[in-house]
Amino acid sequence: MKNNEIPYKIYLDEQEIPKQWYNVRADMKKKPAPLLNPGTLEPMTAQDLAPVFCDELVKQELDDTTAYIDIPQEIQDYYKTYRPSPVMRAYRLEEKLQTPAKIYYKFEGNNTSGSHKLNSAIAQAYYAKKQGLKGVTTETGAGQWGTALSMACAYLGLDCDVYMVKVSYEQKPFRREVMRTYGAKVTPSPSMTTEVGKKILAEHPGTTGSLGCAISEAVEAAVTREGYRYVLGSVLNQVLLHQSIIGLEAKAALDKYGVVPDIIIGCAGGGSNLGGLISPFMGEMLRGERDYRIIAVEPASCPSLTRGKYVYDFCDTGMVTPLAKMYTLGSGFIPSANHAGGLRYHGMSPVISELFHQGLLEACSVEQTAVFEAAELFAREEGILPAPESAHAIRVAMDEALRCKETGEEKTILFGLTGTGYFDMLAYEKFNNGVMSDYIPTDADLEEGLAGIPNIPQNQ
Amino acid sequence: MKNNEIPYKIYLDEQEIPKQWYNVRADMKKKPAPLLNPGTLEPMTAQDLAPVFCDELVKQELDDTTAYIDIPQEIQDYYKTYRPSPVMRAYRLEEKLQTPAKIYYKFEGNNTSGSHKLNSAIAQAYYAKKQGLKGVTTETGAGQWGTALSMACAYLGLDCDVYMVKVSYEQKPFRREVMRTYGAKVTPSPSMTTEVGKKILAEHPGTTGSLGCAISEAVEAAVTREGYRYVLGSVLNQVLLHQSIIGLEAKAALDKYGVVPDIIIGCAGGGSNLGGLISPFMGEMLRGERDYRIIAVEPASCPSLTRGKYVYDFCDTGMVTPLAKMYTLGSGFIPSANHAGGLRYHGMSPVISELFHQGLLEACSVEQTAVFEAAELFAREEGILPAPESAHAIRVAMDEALRCKETGEEKTILFGLTGTGYFDMLAYEKFNNGVMSDYIPTDADLEEGLAGIPNIPQNQ
Repeated sequence: MKNNEIPYKIYLDEQEIPKQWYNVRADMKKKPAPLLNPGTLEPMTAQDLAPVFCDELVKQELDDTTAYIDIPQEIQDYYKTYRPSPVMRAYRLEEKLQTPAKIYYKFEGNNTSGSHKLNSAIAQAYYAKKQGLKGVTTETGAGQWGTALSMACAYLGLDCDVYMVKVSYEQKPFRREVMRTYGAKVTPSPSMTTEVGKKILAEHPGTTGSLGCAISEAVEAAVTREGYRYVLGSVLNQVLLHQSIIGLEAKAALDKYGVVPDIIIGCAGGGSNLGGLISPFMGEMLRGERDYRIIAVEPASCPSLTRGKYVYDFCDTGMVTPLAKMYTLGSGFIPSANHAGGLRYHGMSPVISELFHQGLLEACSVEQTAVFEAAELFAREEGILPAPESAHAIRVAMDEALRCKETGEEKTILFGLTGTGYFDMLAYEKFNNGVMSDYIPTDADLEEGLAGIPNIPQNQ
Repeated sequence: MKNNEIPYKIYLDEQEIPKQWYNVRADMKKKPAPLLNPGTLEPMTAQDLAPVFCDELVKQELDDTTAYIDIPQEIQDYYKTYRPSPVMRAYRLEEKLQTPAKIYYKFEGNNTSGSHKLNSAIAQAYYAKKQGLKGVTTETGAGQWGTALSMACAYLGLDCDVYMVKVSYEQKPFRREVMRTYGAKVTPSPSMTTEVGKKILAEHPGTTGSLGCAISEAVEAAVTREGYRYVLGSVLNQVLLHQSIIGLEAKAALDKYGVVPDIIIGCAGGGSNLGGLISPFMGEMLRGERDYRIIAVEPASCPSLTRGKYVYDFCDTGMVTPLAKMYTLGSGFIPSANHAGGLRYHGMSPVISELFHQGLLEACSVEQTAVFEAAELFAREEGILPAPESAHAIRVAMDEALRCKETGEEKTILFGLTGTGYFDMLAYEKFNNGVMSDYIPTDADLEEGLAGIPNIPQNQ
C-alpha cells in the first residue's frame, strides 16, 4: 500500500461546499443553440416555457450570460446532508493495474438515490415549492432520477408523479418501492392515464416503453393539471447548471493538494454528470487559462455523440416538447433491450453537443461486456460496486491508465463515479452468468430513428 | 434549518482513524463466561479452537485482559477506503419531531457491503491470509455479512464459501449476485454439500433454512478441508473487538465538539454493532468514570435478551459448535417467516449478555410495523433508507426523542445506523402495501426452542 500525502478520500468541509453554481454557457463564445417552438420554429421564450417549467428554472434555462448563480440557503442546507462528496484516490486500482498513472474519481453514489441526480432534484423541487406548486411530474428509466426526485419531494412535501419506463418498472420492482417509500406515485409508461400514452399504446400495443415515451406522458401530466410542472433529470441547461456542484467540489478538493488532472472522463447519456463534472475545467479552457483532455463515454448501443447527427430534434417520442439542437439518433430510437442501465437517451445535452462540435471534448463508445469487466475489477479493488452507467467511465479510465503503463507516462486521470449499482443486479447477474449481449446497432438499425428527425432549417 | 456550530456530518481525518481496537472485556471485573467444549464441558483452549478459527483470531477470542490491540497496517489501509464513517446530526428529524432532544447517529452504511460488517470481515480475512490459508467459510442470513466477507476476500485473493439461508437465497437474488460479483461461492443452506446439511434435509425435507443451520454447514466445510477456517460476523468476542472501531470513532468525533450522549441505542441481533458502538462508553462505565443509559433493541419476533434464558447453549442448530453462555431462545428457535431483515439469531453475544446480566445496559423489543414506520419517516427526513435492522434503533431513538418533547428534557441521543436497506425492498414493499405482519411468538412458540437447550451445569 502506498504511503502518500494524498489521502484515500479528499473531503471538503461542509462550509467549503460551493455556494454558487457555475454556468459554463457564460464562458462559451458560441452559445448552445436555443430551444425552438416546434410550431413557429422561433426560439422558445420564458412565456412559452412557463406552462412546462417553474419560473425560476425557466430563467436558469435561458440564461447563457451569468457565470455564477447563487445556491439558495435551503438547497445548501440539503446539500449538507450528503455533500460534499469525496474525491477518491484509486490507490488499490492503480496498484492492481501496475500503472504509473494517478487515478482519482469523484464519487457521487453515497446517498440513497444512489447517484448525482439528487443535486438537481432538490434544486428543481425547491423552486417548485417556492412557487407554491402542488407537485411535479417526471419520467425515469433506470430509476436513479425518479428516486432522487422522490427524496427531494418527500422532504419538501410536494406531490411526485413518476412515469417509469414499463420495462424498468417490471424489471426493477425495488427501485419502484424505494420511490413509493418516499411517497411518489409511480406509473408504468406508456399508460392509459395520458392522451399521448393511449395513442402510443394504440399504435404499439406490446411496447415496453422508452424514455422518450415517458417524457411525453410526464409533460402532458404537468401541463394539463393546475399547480404542476414538469422536471427533467438531464439534457437541460438548468440541470447541467445544478450539476456543476460536482465539478466545483472536485476542483476545490484537487486544488487543495495541488493536483491538476490531465484527462477528465465522464459517462454520457443525456450529459448531466459529464456536464457537471467538467464545467469548471471547461471554463478554464474556454477562458484560455488551461488545457485538459476531456472524454465523453457513451454505450456503443446508444451512440448519440459518436454516430448521431447534430441537428434540431424533439426531446421526446410523442413530439410534445420543444426542439433542441443536439447530437441525436432520432426521437424514435430505442436501444436494444439488452442494454443495461441508463445512458439510453436518443439525444445529448445541447451544451455538451456544442462543446463536442467545437472540438473541446472527445467522445468514444464502449461495449457492454468490456464495461462490466471494468466494473467487476473496480468493485473488487476499490470496494464500490459501480452503476453500469458509471462503469463506462471506469472502462475508459482503466484503458487510459493501461496506456500509461505502456508509455510510462505519469498522467493524472479524474473520472466521475456517478453512482452505485445496487439496483442493477439483474445486469450483473447476466454478466456473472456469461450471458451479456454486446449488440451494437447496425447502420440500418439507426436509419429509422435518424429518418424520423424533423426537417428544420439548421441555421437556427 | 438550524444554524448550529455542529455540522450535519462530523468526519474525522483519515489519520484520526483509531489504530487500536478496544477490548471491553479487559475492563469487566466479572468476565463473560468462557466457551465450553461440548464433549468435556471444559473451557475451550486455543488448541481446541485452532481447527475452526485462524490462530490470531483464537488469541483475540480468548484474550480478556488486553485492553487495546493494535490494528495491523494493512487493515488500517483498507479501513481508509471507507472509513472514518460519519457521525450525523439528525437536524431534520429533530425538526420534524419538534423535540428538544439532540439526535446523533453513527452511519456505517456508506460502503458496498451496506453495513458495519466490513469492519470485522477485513480483519478476519486478513488474519486468514496472513496464516497462508486458502479460504474461509461462513454463513449469511440477510446477506450483509456474506457481502462484506466477499469484498474482503476478493481484495485479499482468498476463496470465500458462503452458506446462505435458503429463504434469503431465494428472496434476495441480488444479494447473492453482489457476492458472486466479488467472486464468492454462494450455496443455499441447508444443502447436500455437507453431512450436517444432508441430515437436516432428511429430517426437515421442506425447510427453508436458518442461521443456525447455515453455521453448522459452514463450520463443517471449514474443518473438513485443508487450508480453510470458519469466520463469523457476530456474537464472538473477536467480532465485538473489531467492531469497537465504530464506538471509538463515534466517541472521538463527539469529543471534538464536546458532545456527551445521555442515551446510546443500538439494534441487537448477535450483538456485533451494539457491542462495537457502546464499547468505549461502556469502558468508561466499567472504570467508574462516567454513566450512560444504554439500550439494546431487539425485534419482538426474536427476543433473546427480553425473553430468553441466560444459560449455556449451542451457537448453531446442528450442535457442532462450542457452547456459549448467553441469553438464548434455544438453538432450534426460528423466528416467524414474516420477520424481515437480520436480527434473527437465537442467542446473543456473551459479552452483551454478561453486561446485560450485570444491569449495565437495558433491553427492549419492538414490533415490525412500528419499526418500518420509523424507517419511512427517517428515510424521508434524513434522506437515508435504513436497513430494517438499523430501523429498530431508529424506532427507539425516536421514542426517546418524543419522550423528551413531553418532558422538555434536552437529552442527547446517539444511535447506531448500521446500514442501508437497498436489498430489503421486499420488506419495504410489504410495508408500502400494508401487509406487514407483527407476529410475536407466544410462550408456547418459545417453549420448543427453550426445551432444546442442553442441560449444562450453569456454574461454569
